[in-house]
Amino acid sequence: MISSQKLSVIRSAMQDRNLTAYIVPSSDPHQSEYVAAHWKSREWLSGFTGSAGTLVITAHHAGLWTDSRYFIQAEEQLKGSEIVLHKLVIPHTAEHLDWMMENLPAGSTVGLDGRLFSVGQVRRMASYFYNKNIELDTDCDLVGQIWVDRPLLPQTPVYEHDVKYAGVARAEKIQVVRDKMGSADYYLVSTLDDIAWLLNLRGNDVECNPVFYAYAVIGKNRVWLFVETTKVKEELITTLNQDGVIVKPYNAIEAFLKNLPTGQTIHIDLSSTSNQVHNALQKESIREGKNLVAPLKAIKNPVEIQHCKNAMVSDGVALLRMFRWLEKTLDDRAVPETEVAEKLIEYRREADTYVGESFEAIVGYNSNGAIVHYHAESGSCAAIEKKGILLVDCGGQYLNGTTDITRTIALGRPTSGQMKDFTLVLKGHIALCRAKFPKGTTGVQLDILARMFLWEHQLNYGHGTGHGVGFFLNVHEPPQGFSPAVNTPRANIAIEPGMLTSNEPGLYKAGQYGIRTENLIFCVEDGESDFGEFYRFENLTLFPIDLSLVDKSLLSTAEKQWLNDYHAEVFSKLSPHLNKEEKAWLEKRCEGI
Amino acid sequence: MISSQKLSVIRSAMQDRNLTAYIVPSSDPHQSEYVAAHWKSREWLSGFTGSAGTLVITAHHAGLWTDSRYFIQAEEQLKGSEIVLHKLVIPHTAEHLDWMMENLPAGSTVGLDGRLFSVGQVRRMASYFYNKNIELDTDCDLVGQIWVDRPLLPQTPVYEHDVKYAGVARAEKIQVVRDKMGSADYYLVSTLDDIAWLLNLRGNDVECNPVFYAYAVIGKNRVWLFVETTKVKEELITTLNQDGVIVKPYNAIEAFLKNLPTGQTIHIDLSSTSNQVHNALQKESIREGKNLVAPLKAIKNPVEIQHCKNAMVSDGVALLRMFRWLEKTLDDRAVPETEVAEKLIEYRREADTYVGESFEAIVGYNSNGAIVHYHAESGSCAAIEKKGILLVDCGGQYLNGTTDITRTIALGRPTSGQMKDFTLVLKGHIALCRAKFPKGTTGVQLDILARMFLWEHQLNYGHGTGHGVGFFLNVHEPPQGFSPAVNTPRANIAIEPGMLTSNEPGLYKAGQYGIRTENLIFCVEDGESDFGEFYRFENLTLFPIDLSLVDKSLLSTAEKQWLNDYHAEVFSKLSPHLNKEEKAWLEKRCEGI
Repeated sequence: MISSQKLSVIRSAMQDRNLTAYIVPSSDPHQSEYVAAHWKSREWLSGFTGSAGTLVITAHHAGLWTDSRYFIQAEEQLKGSEIVLHKLVIPHTAEHLDWMMENLPAGSTVGLDGRLFSVGQVRRMASYFYNKNIELDTDCDLVGQIWVDRPLLPQTPVYEHDVKYAGVARAEKIQVVRDKMGSADYYLVSTLDDIAWLLNLRGNDVECNPVFYAYAVIGKNRVWLFVETTKVKEELITTLNQDGVIVKPYNAIEAFLKNLPTGQTIHIDLSSTSNQVHNALQKESIREGKNLVAPLKAIKNPVEIQHCKNAMVSDGVALLRMFRWLEKTLDDRAVPETEVAEKLIEYRREADTYVGESFEAIVGYNSNGAIVHYHAESGSCAAIEKKGILLVDCGGQYLNGTTDITRTIALGRPTSGQMKDFTLVLKGHIALCRAKFPKGTTGVQLDILARMFLWEHQLNYGHGTGHGVGFFLNVHEPPQGFSPAVNTPRANIAIEPGMLTSNEPGLYKAGQYGIRTENLIFCVEDGESDFGEFYRFENLTLFPIDLSLVDKSLLSTAEKQWLNDYHAEVFSKLSPHLNKEEKAWLEKRCEGI
Repeated sequence: MISSQKLSVIRSAMQDRNLTAYIVPSSDPHQSEYVAAHWKSREWLSGFTGSAGTLVITAHHAGLWTDSRYFIQAEEQLKGSEIVLHKLVIPHTAEHLDWMMENLPAGSTVGLDGRLFSVGQVRRMASYFYNKNIELDTDCDLVGQIWVDRPLLPQTPVYEHDVKYAGVARAEKIQVVRDKMGSADYYLVSTLDDIAWLLNLRGNDVECNPVFYAYAVIGKNRVWLFVETTKVKEELITTLNQDGVIVKPYNAIEAFLKNLPTGQTIHIDLSSTSNQVHNALQKESIREGKNLVAPLKAIKNPVEIQHCKNAMVSDGVALLRMFRWLEKTLDDRAVPETEVAEKLIEYRREADTYVGESFEAIVGYNSNGAIVHYHAESGSCAAIEKKGILLVDCGGQYLNGTTDITRTIALGRPTSGQMKDFTLVLKGHIALCRAKFPKGTTGVQLDILARMFLWEHQLNYGHGTGHGVGFFLNVHEPPQGFSPAVNTPRANIAIEPGMLTSNEPGLYKAGQYGIRTENLIFCVEDGESDFGEFYRFENLTLFPIDLSLVDKSLLSTAEKQWLNDYHAEVFSKLSPHLNKEEKAWLEKRCEGI
C-alpha cells in the first residue's frame, strides 16, 4: 500500500468508529523513545523514519508534528504524500493538541491506541480537550487492523549483564526499590531500560538499545518478570529464581494485574504506565507515584563510572584510528559518508567489550551536517573530499559503558566564518563543562550556559544541549537533561552527583554546514560553603577538538586553559594505547594554544 | 491575647470542627501578595510580619514556612512563641504540604478559609492529599471568629488614573479583553492590580500598592465593578457609566455570580479566583482559562514606558540628594537607618508626580544589610557611621511610574573581600542586563546569568533575581520574573518586549554585610536572524553604582564598557536637573574606569 491508500483505509475505519481525528504516536507500550519494528506504526503510515513525531489524521488533513532535528528529513520523506509537516516551536511538546483544539469541532471524538500512550498523557489530553467537549476513544488500534506485513515482536535472547560491570547485584537493587515502595505491596515497572538495569539483564530487541520487551512487578518478597519466555535460557531462569525473580509470559501482565489480591496496593508511575495496562488494574489498588527506578539508575555507581572511563579510552582510540584512516584515504580518493560510519564500527570492534553502536552514526559532510539527525544512505550519500566541514556524531555500546561523542573537523582550510561559528559553539561547550552550581540546579537553568555566546550573535540551535546517558543502556536516558524547554520533565530535574549527561551545543547553517561538539560530562561534588553544597562536572569523553577550527582571539584565558588541560588529559589517557605513529598524530592535535 | 492564647483558642475551635490541621496563609480573597490590615490574619496569629509565610497549626505543632528573605526576621519575631520556623528550600513553594503529608495521619481533615485560597491551590492540595486520604474543609474562618479588634476593610477613595499617563483609555482596554474572551459571556477579574490597570483607576487600600478592594466582571456589553460604593465619588461613577462600567457593592459579587443567566458562560482563572467565589458559580457556567488581563498589563505601552523613563529621572535625582545629604551629615554625626528612609521620602516628594513609597524602604547598615527584608525600627535601629557598608533598597509610586532601586555603598575604605563580593554581584547584574536571547526565553533560563559568577566562588543568594514591576501599580507584578524556582509560574513565563522587570542579584554574609545592585530593565526587540527573533534589555534605572566597591581586575573589557556607558547615561540624563554642586558630585561618581 502507498501512503495515500493507507490514509484512506484509516479514514474509512475512522468513519466506522465515528472518530473526528486519529492520533498515531512514535511510541510502544513501554513509552520507549526508540522502538522495535513491530511498533513503528507512525513510520509505516507516514513514511517519516525519525524517532520522534506524531501523526494526526482527520477527514481533510493529515499532519506530522516533529522537532527541528527532523525538519529537513521530514520534509524530504513526506514529499509526494498529502501529509503536512507541522514544525514544533518547542521540542518534545504536544503542539498537535493545540492544533486539534483549534481545528476540531466541539463534541468531536479523537481516537488512539491506549497501549501507546501513558495514563498521564491520556489524562492531560482529556483535561485539555474538556473545555471543548472533545472526547477520547482510547481503544482504537486502527493501524494494527490494516498492517498486514507487520513485523513480529523481536525474539532476541535476554542475557545477564555481569555484576562486575553493573557494580551492584540485582537482589540489592531490588531491595533498594522495595525500601522506596512505602506501604504499597507492588510496584509496576513498564520502562524497558529500568527493567534491564534493575535486573542486570540486557537484550537486543531495539536497535542500538540493549533492552528487551518486558514488564516487571516488584512484590514484597518476589519479582515477576513478564517477558517472552522463549527468549530466556533455562539456566538464566534458574539464576533469576534464586534471586526471587519469577519469569512469566509477556502477555500475562494484564491478567496478572487484574487478579492482584483484593485489598493489596500497587504503586505505578503515570508517565510510563500505558493507559491500557492501567485499565487492567482495579481502581482501589492503585497508588499513583513517581518512577522509583529511573532516579536510582541515573546515579551511576563508582564501579559503573570507572568502567565508563575505561570505555571512553576504547572509544577515543577507535575514533583516532578512524580519523587517521580518513585523513590518509582522502589523499587518494573521496570517501562516501557511509564508509566513515562503517570504519567507526570496525575500529570500535577492536575493543573486547564492544557490543554495537549506541545509535546509528551521523556522518554529515558540509550541508548534510546541517541536517541534525542526518542519515547517510549508501549510494546516494555525499563523497567527502579534502575540503569543507565534516560532522561525525557516533557512539558505542560496550559491556562497560555507553558512549556518545560528536566532533566537527575541517578537511581543508576553514573560512573565518566557520572558525567563528565553531568557536562560539565551543565557548558554550566549555562554559557548561566548567559550571559550578548549587545543589538543586536543574537542566533548564544550565542549558543557557551553552547558548549564551551564540545568542549574542543571534545564533542558536534547535535541540536540547544534553541528555542523560545509560550505562550499557539507552544512549538517551531520562530523567535529566540540559534543555530550554521549561515545561518538560527533563528540564526540571536537578542535576546530581553521579549523573552522566551529554554536553552538545551546535550550530546548523542550512545548505552550508553543521557544527556540534559533544562530550559526556559526569556530575561530582565540589564542596560545601555557607551557601550550601556545590557541584561541578568532570569530563569523561576523550578525543581532541579540532584546533584548526578554533579562533583563539574569541577565547578567554580561562577557556584557553580549559582547552589545553583537556587536550593534555586526552593525550595522557589515550597515548598508552597507541603505536608510535598514532601517538605522534595525537600529540600534534593535543598541542597547547 | 498573646500568641499562645490565640493558638490555644484556635486549637479548641479545631477540635470542635474535627480538624487535624489548620492552614493560615498570607493572602486575601484576591490572592494579593500585600494585603490590607484586615486580612493580616497570619501576622495577627503568629507575630511574624513578613509578606510571605504560611502558618500550619496541629494539636502538637505550630509551624511557619517562609523563604530565605525572611529567615532572620522570622526567627526574631517567633522567639518566645511555640511556633517553629520551617525554612523553605525553594522560595514560593508549598513545602508545608510535604510536611503535612509526612506528619498528618491518613484520614485527617485539614481546615482553611476558602476565601484566602485560589481554586487552583485548593485543587492542588486536594489532589496531593488524595493519596493519604486527607480531606479539606474549606469553610473554616477560625481566625475571624476570635479576632475581636480586627481592622475594618479599608475605606480610602478610588480615583481616576489619567489617560495621559495610562496611554490607553479604559474602553479600549476592555475591548481588547473582550476580544480574548472567545465564546465566554463573562470574564471574572479578581486580582486588584488587574482591575486597577484595566479601568485606569487607582486606590490606596493596601500600603504602597495603589489598588482598591474590588471584583470586576466583564460582560459582552457592560462591565460590573464590585467595590465599596462609598469609596467612589458620584462624578467618577458617572464617568464609569459612560464607559459602560456599572458600580455595585463589593459584597454583591457572590449573589451576582450565583444569578448569572442560565446557559451563559463565565471565563475564570483558577490561579486568582478564590475557592469561595468559585463555589458561588454554577458548575455548568464555568469556563476555566488563563488570566486575560495580566499578560496585557505586563506589556507596557509606549506612553507608559516614556513616563517610566521620566519617573526614573525624578527618582535618580531624589536618590542623589539623599546620598549627598547622608555624606554631609555623616561628617557631623551618626545617622539612624530610619532617617535615611525618611529623607528618601522627603526628596522623592519634590517631584510633582510622587504619590508615596512603592514599598517600605530597606536601609540596612553592615550586618542589617544581610537581612534581606530588613525593616529598621526607630529607636532600635543601627546608627550609620563613616565606615562599613550600607544597603538601600527603595522605590517610589509616581503617577508616571513605579520605581525600585537598590544601591550598596561603602562609607569608608572597603576591604578587598567586600570589593570582590560586590564585583561578583555586579558581574551578574551586568550579564543579565547585557543578555541577548531568542523569543520564548523564560525567566528561569536567564536567572543563572546573574548567579554564575557567584556560584564559581560557592556563593549564592536565596531570592529570585527579579520580579515584574507595575506602572504606578504593584512593585511586584506578575507574571514574569527571573527565578531559579523551575516549577513556579513566574519562572516559566517568556520574557517579551514591553515587560519591565527588576535585575537584583545580591550576596548576604550573615552578621557582616549585605550587597545588592538593582535596576529595572525593559525588554525590547533586537532584530531577527535565520534563527528567529531576538530580544535584549534596555536599562531604565538611573543612579551611579559605587565605583569604590568595584574590583576592576575582576571585570572583563565588555563589563567595564557597560559600566562606563551606564555612568555616561546616568550623568547625561540626571545632570540637566541638578545644580552645580550636585552635578559635580554626580560627575565624580560617573567617571570612566
